[in-house]
Amino acid sequence: MTDKPSVIRETDDEARGLARRLLRSARYVALAVIDPQTHFPSVSRVLLGTDTDGAAVILVSALSAHTRALEADRRVSLLAGEPGKGDPLAHPRLTLQCLAEPVERGSPTHDRLRSRFIARHPKAKLYIDFPDFRFFRLLPQSASLNGGFGRAYLLPGEDFRITPEPTGNLSGRELELLQDLVSTKPELAQQIATGRCGQKPGNWAFCGLDRAGIDLIAGDLLVRYDFGHHIGSQAELYSVLANTAYPIP
Amino acid sequence: MTDKPSVIRETDDEARGLARRLLRSARYVALAVIDPQTHFPSVSRVLLGTDTDGAAVILVSALSAHTRALEADRRVSLLAGEPGKGDPLAHPRLTLQCLAEPVERGSPTHDRLRSRFIARHPKAKLYIDFPDFRFFRLLPQSASLNGGFGRAYLLPGEDFRITPEPTGNLSGRELELLQDLVSTKPELAQQIATGRCGQKPGNWAFCGLDRAGIDLIAGDLLVRYDFGHHIGSQAELYSVLANTAYPIP
Repeated sequence: MTDKPSVIRETDDEARGLARRLLRSARYVALAVIDPQTHFPSVSRVLLGTDTDGAAVILVSALSAHTRALEADRRVSLLAGEPGKGDPLAHPRLTLQCLAEPVERGSPTHDRLRSRFIARHPKAKLYIDFPDFRFFRLLPQSASLNGGFGRAYLLPGEDFRITPEPTGNLSGRELELLQDLVSTKPELAQQIATGRCGQKPGNWAFCGLDRAGIDLIAGDLLVRYDFGHHIGSQAELYSVLANTAYPIP
Repeated sequence: MTDKPSVIRETDDEARGLARRLLRSARYVALAVIDPQTHFPSVSRVLLGTDTDGAAVILVSALSAHTRALEADRRVSLLAGEPGKGDPLAHPRLTLQCLAEPVERGSPTHDRLRSRFIARHPKAKLYIDFPDFRFFRLLPQSASLNGGFGRAYLLPGEDFRITPEPTGNLSGRELELLQDLVSTKPELAQQIATGRCGQKPGNWAFCGLDRAGIDLIAGDLLVRYDFGHHIGSQAELYSVLANTAYPIP
């Protein structure tokens, strides 16, 4: 009932959408690594970021136990999706297996992740530049979605991947396009959060953009608006946002 | 800052008390096992029970992926302690490494765990007797407590163990003593929850007892009142509860 694989369903677009939203809306996750000394698994809490290709991103101290573990073994797992009220097992959650990839400090990738991570976790500014801190990209390999009682699905890693846009009109320019959006249409954030993501009104602001969707933040709340397809240009971005920025009838 | 072992502190009674409360107040935890096929760690959400000797307890389906994993490798890890408002890393949490021990259905241990688990998770009644469900006792081996920024501690497994009381006046009679307490002094639950555990008034009831403390439940809320020492008799239980059932001045 809680975890029966006998009820694994055929993965459809709704399940894929839910799995991606669980991952991309998560402020934090439980991260499991394998302890290099004892070979026990070890699970701890980390803040979660995302990259423009759909990788999950963590910021860890080189001195910490989980960093030493994932330097020794790249295989990690994370659990995303927090329970609300009532039975904790009635709430959807995602188990994702990933391969961890260290990010060199000062590289363009580091700079991109730093900017995206701070937009999502403003308080990380306090320690993000400490010399022992660095990012790991967690590349999704496979996943198991538990959408609540009797709703279990298996997904391959590619269901989380966001492919680059070949002309370069968008890929690599996500931050620039986001900054442009924030300065020209800040009011759209509130409209999308309330009209499309079911959130209450608040100080909603955009905090991340990629080809597959946009992230919104208001204090402790973080939500993902997935476009449902990969967009290819700034014009398409504005078109998608304009079409969706009205309350659902 | 978030997870620097350079700030590991000497473990004191306050840290031990916090670690035990995090474990014993948890309704659910993130459970990490090692996948026997891929050797990736795999982390999922499970409801948490406890046994009278301090073991953590989970109820799982024999058909589930995590059950197959812990049959192949007894080494597991769990993460207890949920964040409240604000920075998720400012809230205390416990990483516990355990060895899993299957519990035979129909054994006295199974019956004891069943009764304790239902008191803690009333909705588990719906599936607890399904033939593929069974308990595992998770025996604590070592732990790492993160009490919030800059407050990290390491603890041995024995810090979570509750030793049996040698005369048998209490050990083995926990359920009987709890039922007696519930029928004679139900109002004490509310007094202890509000006066000693900092909870708001509610439909507080006792739901578990062992030599080291008592568990209280009110709807979605579960709290642990640790006695601070191991009691040895019913008389001592009533004395401890009477002495503590007044609001903190």
